[in-house]
Amino acid sequence: MSKKTNKLRVLTGIKPTGEIHLGNFSGAIKPTIELSQNPENEVIFLCPDWHGLTNKGQIFQPGQLSHHVICTYLALGFELENNAIILQSDFSQIQENAWYLACTCSAGLLERSHAYKDALASGKEATAGLLFYPTLMASDIVTFAAHLVPVGKDQAQHLEYASDMVRHFNQATNSQTFLEPKPLFQDNPILLGIDGRKMSKSYQNTISLFGPQKETEKAVKNIKTDSKGLNESKNPEECLIYQLFCSFASLEAKEHMKEQLIKGMGYGYGHAKQDFLQEHQRVFGQKRELYEHYLNNPQEVQKLLKNGYEKCLNYANEVTQKARQALGLKSYKLW
Amino acid sequence: MSKKTNKLRVLTGIKPTGEIHLGNFSGAIKPTIELSQNPENEVIFLCPDWHGLTNKGQIFQPGQLSHHVICTYLALGFELENNAIILQSDFSQIQENAWYLACTCSAGLLERSHAYKDALASGKEATAGLLFYPTLMASDIVTFAAHLVPVGKDQAQHLEYASDMVRHFNQATNSQTFLEPKPLFQDNPILLGIDGRKMSKSYQNTISLFGPQKETEKAVKNIKTDSKGLNESKNPEECLIYQLFCSFASLEAKEHMKEQLIKGMGYGYGHAKQDFLQEHQRVFGQKRELYEHYLNNPQEVQKLLKNGYEKCLNYANEVTQKARQALGLKSYKLW
Repeated sequence: MSKKTNKLRVLTGIKPTGEIHLGNFSGAIKPTIELSQNPENEVIFLCPDWHGLTNKGQIFQPGQLSHHVICTYLALGFELENNAIILQSDFSQIQENAWYLACTCSAGLLERSHAYKDALASGKEATAGLLFYPTLMASDIVTFAAHLVPVGKDQAQHLEYASDMVRHFNQATNSQTFLEPKPLFQDNPILLGIDGRKMSKSYQNTISLFGPQKETEKAVKNIKTDSKGLNESKNPEECLIYQLFCSFASLEAKEHMKEQLIKGMGYGYGHAKQDFLQEHQRVFGQKRELYEHYLNNPQEVQKLLKNGYEKCLNYANEVTQKARQALGLKSYKLW
Repeated sequence: MSKKTNKLRVLTGIKPTGEIHLGNFSGAIKPTIELSQNPENEVIFLCPDWHGLTNKGQIFQPGQLSHHVICTYLALGFELENNAIILQSDFSQIQENAWYLACTCSAGLLERSHAYKDALASGKEATAGLLFYPTLMASDIVTFAAHLVPVGKDQAQHLEYASDMVRHFNQATNSQTFLEPKPLFQDNPILLGIDGRKMSKSYQNTISLFGPQKETEKAVKNIKTDSKGLNESKNPEECLIYQLFCSFASLEAKEHMKEQLIKGMGYGYGHAKQDFLQEHQRVFGQKRELYEHYLNNPQEVQKLLKNGYEKCLNYANEVTQKARQALGLKSYKLW
C-alpha cells in the first residue's frame, strides 16, 4: 500500500471520434503506452465517450468507436498490471463531480473556453454539452485524483481550467477535497499527413494503424514526394516518407532507409514506399490480429479491464464521498 | 401492473434553501400532499439539493436543509404508499441524463434562461451550475418519466425548456427515449407576507410552520393592519390576518373569524391574532412534534422512503438504459 502512494497517477485519454491513425499513434498512444510500462507511474487511460457526444452531428461515433480505441491500446501493449483502461461513461461519479465543480466556478469561464469560442466562430451549432465540456474534463482528472495529465500545446487551457476549478471548489467549501493536477508536458512533434499538412481525419490525409491493407497501400502510394530520380541522393529530413516512417519503424529500419535515401543509388521513392509498407506490416500486422481478436471478444476485454475498473471505482467513490462531505450533502441510500 | 400504468406520474420539488413558511405551505406543500392523497396519481417529490448548490454564496444550505424539507412533507401527511419522496443527489442517473440532454440542445438555450439572465442583470456572480441548471431540471423530469409537472407562472419557461430538450434528444437519436412532460397548471394565489408584500425569506416577512413558538408569536403580532377600532366592522377581504389565516385554517375557523371581523363588536385585530395563533398551534402543533421526531431519526426516515427509492431507482435505470442504447454507448461494467 505504501508503495502505491509513491506512484504518480497519470490520467490521459483520446476521444473516440475517428479511426486511429499514425498521428494518434505517435502523438498520444505510443507515449501513453510507454508511461504505462514505467513502474513509477500508475496510468489511467480514460476513453472519453461522453466528450465525443458534444458534436451533435456525429453523436453516434463515441458508441461506435470507443471499443475500437480500447482494443487498440490493448493490442499495442498498454500494461494492465499496474494501470487501468476505463470507459468514461461507466463512471457516473464523473458527472456528479463535474456538477460540484460547476457550482463553484463562474459561467464566464466556460464561455471563454477555446473549444466553445471556436465552434461559435466557425458558425457551428455549439451544444450545451460543448459549453459545459471543460467541467467534465476537469472532473475526469479530479475524480480519479490524478497527479499528472500529459498535455500538448492545445490542451494547456483545459488543464489551467481544471486547476482553477479545483481551487474554486476547495476554497468555497474550505476543504482539500480535490487534488490540483499538474501538466506533464509532452514534446511530441505534430505528425504530417500524406499531403504534407498536419495529419488529421478532416484532411483525409491519414495512414491508419489497423485499417484494411488495401487502404494503407493506397495511402502510402500517395505520400507526397519531390521529383528526385532513382539514383539521386535524397535528404531524409526533407522526405515525407522518411518522416512518417520514423513514427513507428525500428531504429534499424530507420537507419537503413536513411542510408539508402542519402546514397540514392537505385533507391527511389517507390522503394522507400515498399520498405514503409513492409515495416508497417511487421510492426502492426501481428498487433492487428490481436486487435481484431479483442474487437470480436468484448467479454474477454471486460475481464482484462476488471481489476483496473475496481481500482478506479474505489478512487472515484472516495473522491466523490469527500466532495459530498465537504458540501454536507445528505443521503438516504444507506439502509 | 396494468393498473399502475394508468396512473399519472407527477414530479414536483422544492429547493432546500430556507426555512419552510406558510407561503411554501399554501403554494407548494399543501397541493403536493393533496396530489399524493389522490390514488389516480403517483407523485414523486424530489428534493433538489443539487439545484440549491448553484448559489455559491449559500452552498452549504442544501446539505443543511434537505432533511428538514423531507421531514416537513412527511409530518404534514405526504402519502408514501403509492408515492415517493427522494433526494436528488441520491440519483446519479439525473446527472447522466442531463449530459445527454445537453449534448443535443444548443448552448444558446441555456444563455437565454430567466434564472441566468436575472443573475447577470443583478450583478451576481452566475456560476456555471446556474447556467447549466435547466438541463438538470429537465433531467429531473425525464429521468423518472414523469407525465405531469405542477407549474406556477414563473416555472413555465423551465418546463418549455424540458419539452424542447426532450424533442431535440429524441430527434437527434431518432428514438422515443425521453417522455415529453406536460404542465399541470396550479392556480395557487401568491400568499402575502406580514408586511403585505409577497411572502419571501428575502423580505423577512414570513410565518414559519415549525419554527420556535416565540418567533411565530412575534411574526403574527407584526402582521400589518389598518387602524380600525375594537367595535368597528372590518372587511375580511382587506384584512391581512384573515388572508394569511385562510392558507391553513379549518373551514369552521375561517367562518368564525370572518363573522367576528364583519360584526366587529368587541373583536379587534388583537383578538384575530389570538385566534390565528391558536389555530396555527392546533394545525401545526402536533405535526411539529412528528416533524421533530423525524428530524432526529434519519434512519427511520430512510426506512420510510425505502420503497419509493427502489421504485424510482427502477424508473431511473430503465430510462438511462434507454438513453444509452439510443446513443449506442458501450459498457464494460457487466462482468
